[in-house]
Amino acid sequence: MKLHGYFRSSASYRVRIALNLKGLGAEQLSYHLRKGEQRAPDYLAINPQGLVPTLQGDGGAILTQSLAIIEWLDETHPTPPLLPKEPLRRAQVRAFAQALACDTHPVQNLKILSRLRELGLAEEKVTDWAAWANREGLSACEKLIAHEAAPFCFGDAPTIADLCLVPQLANARRFGVDVAAFPRLLTAEAAAKQLKAFADAAPERQPDAE
Amino acid sequence: MKLHGYFRSSASYRVRIALNLKGLGAEQLSYHLRKGEQRAPDYLAINPQGLVPTLQGDGGAILTQSLAIIEWLDETHPTPPLLPKEPLRRAQVRAFAQALACDTHPVQNLKILSRLRELGLAEEKVTDWAAWANREGLSACEKLIAHEAAPFCFGDAPTIADLCLVPQLANARRFGVDVAAFPRLLTAEAAAKQLKAFADAAPERQPDAE
Repeated sequence: MKLHGYFRSSASYRVRIALNLKGLGAEQLSYHLRKGEQRAPDYLAINPQGLVPTLQGDGGAILTQSLAIIEWLDETHPTPPLLPKEPLRRAQVRAFAQALACDTHPVQNLKILSRLRELGLAEEKVTDWAAWANREGLSACEKLIAHEAAPFCFGDAPTIADLCLVPQLANARRFGVDVAAFPRLLTAEAAAKQLKAFADAAPERQPDAE
Repeated sequence: MKLHGYFRSSASYRVRIALNLKGLGAEQLSYHLRKGEQRAPDYLAINPQGLVPTLQGDGGAILTQSLAIIEWLDETHPTPPLLPKEPLRRAQVRAFAQALACDTHPVQNLKILSRLRELGLAEEKVTDWAAWANREGLSACEKLIAHEAAPFCFGDAPTIADLCLVPQLANARRFGVDVAAFPRLLTAEAAAKQLKAFADAAPERQPDAE
């Protein structure tokens, strides 16, 4: 398989963790987002949104959108599972993941921050925006799992929730958010970072890291 | 079941369509978003994000995030299916849905537009932002299904993709986007609107419509 991504992209990071947890290898192809390489015509032909990641299966299958890719990996390589079996529990894990993947990350990604700069917003205000989006999302997530068994977001094994949480906390710190306000999330993050699958997926460990 | 939502909320609209397609009834509880009713303490206790919709099951189960709710409905009430059976096809349908539910709608919802106004952006620029977000998302979606069998997004029956598309096109028009640029999406929308499940879920048909 080939993973088209970028070391610092949170959505690529999620998929790298999933691949590692499933024990799957993928050749990494890097697109420098600040240089706009994700908008090159060759890449747009496989990912019309011009976003990373894209996963290319060995048979030529092309998959986009990190959560869709991760659910596909989970359906085609069920061990270890990244979602619980029971429908209500699956919905709760998915809701946590989507609170980050829908309502938090896309509101503070490079594309949006660039747009804010184009509108004349000062750099300080752009960072404030990104920090605000992270605080809003992470505050809600802290409450969503307040009564869930530790150490991971949902019990004793990582799920899609943890795959979204770890990259988002990295973003939050980058934008100066005081993450100590989210002790339950930090517990989950600490458990995740003990696992080689998460550690090996970290941005600074990728071949394209700067 | 109880659906906590708002007539004009795209995410609530998606869930209303899903409930109708599954033949499930739900009591609708309305939260006036512009008045901030979704941030009342009683509602935050069930939905810490302060977003609509929330679905309450008859047994007291609380579900948030529209896509998680819809997948739960599909897993617990499998007929008619809202996702194909084959993993790659499921991933493609989910990717289309997420291109709208992650990268488009959250970038142009009321919360974000209010934040832009607070930053001093003129009303015209706020509308430009929302129109831009819709054009970006819908342009990509038009390409994602360019080679898919019509009339629906993915063949001869509606899927989660159509549930996301129809509300998003309504938003796009509201923000002045020229949707004629997306003929394949309009074909899918026209097919969907022929179905009573979609027609009955339209914002203007809801009890809280203004």
